[in-house]
Amino acid sequence: MTAQGETATTIDPRLLAASTKADVLSQALPYIRAFSGKTVVVKYGGHAMEDRALAELFAIDIVLMRLVGIQPVVVHGGGPQISDLMRRLGKEPEFVDGRRVTDGETVDIARMALVGKVNREIVTAINRHGPHAVGVSGEDANLLRVRQRDPRLGFVGEIESVDATLLVRLLREELIPVVATIGIGDDGQPYNCNADTVAGAIAEALRAEKLVYLTDVAGIYADWPDEASLVEAIDLDGLEALVASGAVSEGMIPKVESCIAALRSGVRRAHVLDGRLPHALLLEFFTDEGVGTMVSGPGR
Amino acid sequence: MTAQGETATTIDPRLLAASTKADVLSQALPYIRAFSGKTVVVKYGGHAMEDRALAELFAIDIVLMRLVGIQPVVVHGGGPQISDLMRRLGKEPEFVDGRRVTDGETVDIARMALVGKVNREIVTAINRHGPHAVGVSGEDANLLRVRQRDPRLGFVGEIESVDATLLVRLLREELIPVVATIGIGDDGQPYNCNADTVAGAIAEALRAEKLVYLTDVAGIYADWPDEASLVEAIDLDGLEALVASGAVSEGMIPKVESCIAALRSGVRRAHVLDGRLPHALLLEFFTDEGVGTMVSGPGR
Amino acid sequence: MTAQGETATTIDPRLLAASTKADVLSQALPYIRAFSGKTVVVKYGGHAMEDRALAELFAIDIVLMRLVGIQPVVVHGGGPQISDLMRRLGKEPEFVDGRRVTDGETVDIARMALVGKVNREIVTAINRHGPHAVGVSGEDANLLRVRQRDPRLGFVGEIESVDATLLVRLLREELIPVVATIGIGDDGQPYNCNADTVAGAIAEALRAEKLVYLTDVAGIYADWPDEASLVEAIDLDGLEALVASGAVSEGMIPKVESCIAALRSGVRRAHVLDGRLPHALLLEFFTDEGVGTMVSGPGR
Amino acid sequence: MTAQGETATTIDPRLLAASTKADVLSQALPYIRAFSGKTVVVKYGGHAMEDRALAELFAIDIVLMRLVGIQPVVVHGGGPQISDLMRRLGKEPEFVDGRRVTDGETVDIARMALVGKVNREIVTAINRHGPHAVGVSGEDANLLRVRQRDPRLGFVGEIESVDATLLVRLLREELIPVVATIGIGDDGQPYNCNADTVAGAIAEALRAEKLVYLTDVAGIYADWPDEASLVEAIDLDGLEALVASGAVSEGMIPKVESCIAALRSGVRRAHVLDGRLPHALLLEFFTDEGVGTMVSGPGR
Amino acid sequence: MTAQGETATTIDPRLLAASTKADVLSQALPYIRAFSGKTVVVKYGGHAMEDRALAELFAIDIVLMRLVGIQPVVVHGGGPQISDLMRRLGKEPEFVDGRRVTDGETVDIARMALVGKVNREIVTAINRHGPHAVGVSGEDANLLRVRQRDPRLGFVGEIESVDATLLVRLLREELIPVVATIGIGDDGQPYNCNADTVAGAIAEALRAEKLVYLTDVAGIYADWPDEASLVEAIDLDGLEALVASGAVSEGMIPKVESCIAALRSGVRRAHVLDGRLPHALLLEFFTDEGVGTMVSGPGR
Amino acid sequence: MTAQGETATTIDPRLLAASTKADVLSQALPYIRAFSGKTVVVKYGGHAMEDRALAELFAIDIVLMRLVGIQPVVVHGGGPQISDLMRRLGKEPEFVDGRRVTDGETVDIARMALVGKVNREIVTAINRHGPHAVGVSGEDANLLRVRQRDPRLGFVGEIESVDATLLVRLLREELIPVVATIGIGDDGQPYNCNADTVAGAIAEALRAEKLVYLTDVAGIYADWPDEASLVEAIDLDGLEALVASGAVSEGMIPKVESCIAALRSGVRRAHVLDGRLPHALLLEFFTDEGVGTMVSGPGR
Repeated sequence: MTAQGETATTIDPRLLAASTKADVLSQALPYIRAFSGKTVVVKYGGHAMEDRALAELFAIDIVLMRLVGIQPVVVHGGGPQISDLMRRLGKEPEFVDGRRVTDGETVDIARMALVGKVNREIVTAINRHGPHAVGVSGEDANLLRVRQRDPRLGFVGEIESVDATLLVRLLREELIPVVATIGIGDDGQPYNCNADTVAGAIAEALRAEKLVYLTDVAGIYADWPDEASLVEAIDLDGLEALVASGAVSEGMIPKVESCIAALRSGVRRAHVLDGRLPHALLLEFFTDEGVGTMVSGPGR
Repeated sequence: MTAQGETATTIDPRLLAASTKADVLSQALPYIRAFSGKTVVVKYGGHAMEDRALAELFAIDIVLMRLVGIQPVVVHGGGPQISDLMRRLGKEPEFVDGRRVTDGETVDIARMALVGKVNREIVTAINRHGPHAVGVSGEDANLLRVRQRDPRLGFVGEIESVDATLLVRLLREELIPVVATIGIGDDGQPYNCNADTVAGAIAEALRAEKLVYLTDVAGIYADWPDEASLVEAIDLDGLEALVASGAVSEGMIPKVESCIAALRSGVRRAHVLDGRLPHALLLEFFTDEGVGTMVSGPGR
Repeated sequence: MTAQGETATTIDPRLLAASTKADVLSQALPYIRAFSGKTVVVKYGGHAMEDRALAELFAIDIVLMRLVGIQPVVVHGGGPQISDLMRRLGKEPEFVDGRRVTDGETVDIARMALVGKVNREIVTAINRHGPHAVGVSGEDANLLRVRQRDPRLGFVGEIESVDATLLVRLLREELIPVVATIGIGDDGQPYNCNADTVAGAIAEALRAEKLVYLTDVAGIYADWPDEASLVEAIDLDGLEALVASGAVSEGMIPKVESCIAALRSGVRRAHVLDGRLPHALLLEFFTDEGVGTMVSGPGR
Repeated sequence: MTAQGETATTIDPRLLAASTKADVLSQALPYIRAFSGKTVVVKYGGHAMEDRALAELFAIDIVLMRLVGIQPVVVHGGGPQISDLMRRLGKEPEFVDGRRVTDGETVDIARMALVGKVNREIVTAINRHGPHAVGVSGEDANLLRVRQRDPRLGFVGEIESVDATLLVRLLREELIPVVATIGIGDDGQPYNCNADTVAGAIAEALRAEKLVYLTDVAGIYADWPDEASLVEAIDLDGLEALVASGAVSEGMIPKVESCIAALRSGVRRAHVLDGRLPHALLLEFFTDEGVGTMVSGPGR
Repeated sequence: MTAQGETATTIDPRLLAASTKADVLSQALPYIRAFSGKTVVVKYGGHAMEDRALAELFAIDIVLMRLVGIQPVVVHGGGPQISDLMRRLGKEPEFVDGRRVTDGETVDIARMALVGKVNREIVTAINRHGPHAVGVSGEDANLLRVRQRDPRLGFVGEIESVDATLLVRLLREELIPVVATIGIGDDGQPYNCNADTVAGAIAEALRAEKLVYLTDVAGIYADWPDEASLVEAIDLDGLEALVASGAVSEGMIPKVESCIAALRSGVRRAHVLDGRLPHALLLEFFTDEGVGTMVSGPGR
Repeated sequence: MTAQGETATTIDPRLLAASTKADVLSQALPYIRAFSGKTVVVKYGGHAMEDRALAELFAIDIVLMRLVGIQPVVVHGGGPQISDLMRRLGKEPEFVDGRRVTDGETVDIARMALVGKVNREIVTAINRHGPHAVGVSGEDANLLRVRQRDPRLGFVGEIESVDATLLVRLLREELIPVVATIGIGDDGQPYNCNADTVAGAIAEALRAEKLVYLTDVAGIYADWPDEASLVEAIDLDGLEALVASGAVSEGMIPKVESCIAALRSGVRRAHVLDGRLPHALLLEFFTDEGVGTMVSGPGR
């Protein structure tokens, strides 16, 4: 990993000599070999999803990962899009402890926004490069079984179990599942779920090689908001100590907890990447540039 | 087939003698044998979709078909639901020649209504009986490639090609695809499509055994609106003659034309069923009751 | 289960309203789902085999089970048919403790009667509904390895081991094995075997979901011959207690012992059904009518 | 091929030097290579089946063929055994034009004799060397569909079609099908069939490499009964000419006609072997000894 | 394609900004997608094989191609290595019309040099990056059947047939075959073969997407030795015209003729690349740089 | 087993009566059955490899084993051929403790001799009987990972691990791997290895049924060089006692130690055969002649 502030030369690649291009490509070889055939769960959201240009680059990164043999699964939420649709339908979003109060009408709206809009846009962006992506909701083939988290929140789901059979089948067919995080209760009732948590649970169920969070920050900070305290690499024990110390920022908590749970269940590595950087995934996977915080599982 | 008006005894089946139940079951044997392993495309819509009790029975029928070895594919539209969401978002639906004028905002709304709401409700209803159904949009894995039908209509799609690979894969995994009829243009632009036409095109692409339309009428009439003119069975030539004679009602035209195209392309039989009858599919598939119009393909 | 004596209406199903038929069919759904893909061993014999009309209904039941995804294996004996052929060949049947004395000529005759006649008739009856059934003798591919039970009985076999490979292969090919209970000794000598015992041993070897005995009685009685003492459901412990109490009738002993052995080895449920009832299997498998005694395995 | 009368040395192989044994084995190499993976239909009957010692050697030959990669299918009749069982049951066999008059009782007896006795004995003899053989009747899985040949003969079947699916499945599982030649009519009625004809029809259906008749004669004679006229090799045209000339003996006609039909349908070679010679099959398949008449198909 | 003389910036890639690296990688996407799953035959030789540093880069290029889903087959000769070993063994190489006179001792030496030395070095270089490569001689599993080309040349082979089964199997197992061009005569006699010709014949047999020659020149020249006459792209007709005009240099003839034959047999494109350029394969396959001459097959 | 000195009749097999030939063949049945599908590793070397006639018979034996369903793997060294090529290249072979001193040039020469000459000749000899054999070097797909045994010896390898994946794949494709014993170090450096040891390690890795050494002696002697002390059969404990007693000859030590290691790791039986006997493998595998020493694994 190199320091983020480094003054490297930014050049239009069309001006590079052929030999320089070839060198960049050939230096990707050990990374491609290392990840070939591995499953990677990418939580997609925030700025990287809202900025159209970044969204386009994200799609390219995902397709490139697929083509070199990685099996990516994309998991997304869409809080702002839900709030936006609610307001357009004359309904004011309301939150308790940072979680959306979700009555019957709201879960219907959330489903339309997530499954009918956000999910579709991600699928379409990927499929511009080939017929790879398939939209999936947590309700399909009972992927996400949930129960109510808290009666005050209404239809906000807490994951009970993940049946990843459908995802395994789609991956086996070399497709890229894009998962909207609507879960299903015993009674067939849909529930809205926290996408960070769902991503971790799916990574566990698939025994993924990596769980990657694309976020709007540079990574995990040892002493937030001190920018100099950005952590480049940490192990599971270290991360647990950091959480215990109270140093982790509030918004980062669901991601960090999901990382810890996933690593404990056999996922090898978790990453918190800065999704505001163009091609953040490519850089992390195929170059020796570091673009966020890497957390290693036990004994690795 | 029996006449629709027949006065047979309606009895609570719990009061039937065991032997009567056994007889009903055993009389389904030849039908189960005949359809085992066959693919059937069911266009679902109208009253059968809007009435909650009928929708519940529809889900049971589809699951039962799957369990006895039939491979059902459900295709649905949702015009009323699109109009409803448009109005809630302050946008008045507008039609030209019976087709919805679909600007960029409208296709977004249509997608939310079809993929994010109607499709979800069908999937959920089926999955209450087991993890069978998977929601699919025509955009997934480039299932429906379309082009613009008419510039005045905006993003209303005309089918260019169907790539049924994804459906074949899902059927092979014993899943039930439920297809929302959003197609995709060359540029990745989503288009709204006529569900009757999509159902026919998918039946062609899958070389289905049957194409079934669940409608709000008793079947095809030889002399609409004369109720006595209901056609029970007709062959392809007869149906083409009927269309040429101008006797087919306007709303029936896309269905009838899709039937004709599908039968010409190798689908064996097409049916226009009365979806207002409880268990219309079960009756048509597993008893000698007739519940609509059957159209036979050439040479059968 | 309902009481056996209940006065439900017996009606020609052709007179039933379509809706009643559809209801009967749709009520089979949970049963079809529950048994799909499960293996069921049916010991066939007695009145149900000798009465031509009942035999026809039995064939329909077996084929229907197969078509809805159950994997039935039929096991049959044929004591009366063996005695009949012996007498026609001028040889008087002789029994010791209820078991046939079987010299070399008798085992030859038994084999002709079982493999060459009874087995053929069952296969033919089933295959009238499709090319499903394949006759199998315990000698084929060494399915039933036996040793001599008692020198006084001659060639009466006691099961040493079951090699169910052939049955598994036939089931995988969606065929219905019909097994004649001739076993084979180490020296290639054929032995006649008790069909009740063979059925249980095959159910064990296949780890079947159910073992079903079609008999000439209403079920197991807690206090034979008191008709009021018919047991509808009992668990393994209860059945063992019943046997210990001496309450089980003599003819029922091999069935009851095979049930107990099979349930102890992992078969989930055993049934003693009244084979004199038309469609006894359909009723037991696909309706909530009870038609005999059900014995549950441990912990279910 | 060598002349049949040659005076070669007959020696107990235990007295042979190791090197001589090794030479005999190594000389089988080109034959084993040539037949590996090929299907061979062997019509078994006559002396080779009735003589217990020859029957034992036949079983060894068949198992050895299987072990070196050939896929043998055994087809057998059993005229003498049928007549014998008829007489024991007090019924005098009756023939018209050399074919058995077969009333309902007779076909029942034939089935018991063929399926219940002869077939069993062949299966048992083979399975003494390993769990290879599976008895099959033409009724199983609708293998042999027949119609009545001649009303005067009763239930004597003429082959309408062969559905070899079951045989293909058994061969794929490396099993040896042993086929009793009972066919089945449209109505489920069993018919007795000529085993020579059935063997040819099955060879056609399987597109076998070879069709072999084990007979009680030295082969086909150009001028029967002149022993010097034994034909060692002949092609299809030659054999047809021989038939046209009237030189073929009556008993040989069904074999010769089946050979001709099979060779015309793509079977490569047909053989009429002397089944009275010990190990006739081994000699024909694995040495350069000729033991009968070989007929080559067109263009080979 | 860009002109070869262009003055692009050559920079140590470690000094490039992350974003530039990411851009180079992402620009490879369309090429990776286009070649995924395609078979490519690479004739390897000349300077690229003799220069240790270039050989190392060649191995990296081949492994990278494999990892992104291309199926490369490497074919090599080794004239200088044969001559060198001959001289070390005291035998002076001799040529007729540019082809080596190859007596029995020479073909033995050629085999040792090609199979025992050159082939091993290529396999080892590739396998430093993972267990991908498997050395193959044309004698293995009868890959290359040849006959004598010219009695004056001795054991120089002309290809009679290519049995690519072994290569297909190795490719299916995701291995990289490295082929030494020793062929085998009917009598088991080894022959030395021209590697350019073998590469073309293998490309034909595999119906490869591309046939690539790595040479010591910049490509095909329209007017050799005028350097300005380098051809960047040409179609099959154009190339044939060039040959007819006599403009092609002598050393290029076997390559050009093999290109023509391969393109006529269904190979889509042939390339003559400058193997002296580092990473020539990477540049040709994954960037829009052109590094030699591309010949298109008919109708592409 | 019979005594080796026995005076059995050696006869040209063409003079044997057909019945004698058939008896020899049929007596191979139990052996063919016992070894069908089993993997056998044969270390080939010494006189059997150098004598052209014996080499021809060896090829026949190996092909015959393959055709009757055994999966042979041939492992060979070639010390004399290496020394010969060294001398021809003006380099005098040098040994320390019986192992060749192997500098960089020598390992290159060894590779040419083993992979480029000896291996080729074995492959060619086998492939004269069909496209069965594929030459493999320990470097292919990283089959043999080694480390330096002793700095004084240079590039003489000691086995670190065997990755038998490539062999398993080739066997699955019904090919015969012929392995040259060049191993590969971590740095890609080739090493020459002891073929006796490699054969044992490969037998272990494949969990072979048998490990067979073809040698230039009659077998293992209990009291070398007393010829009367030849051991026909011994178990693992016995062999270890023999080694401990110092009675085993020096040249036999690597074979005996490899036998012991292989039998401890699950190989069932090891054999030291006299490769000077024609068809030694055939005799050992398919007759009751014994041709050397058999060592049984524990508990067999």
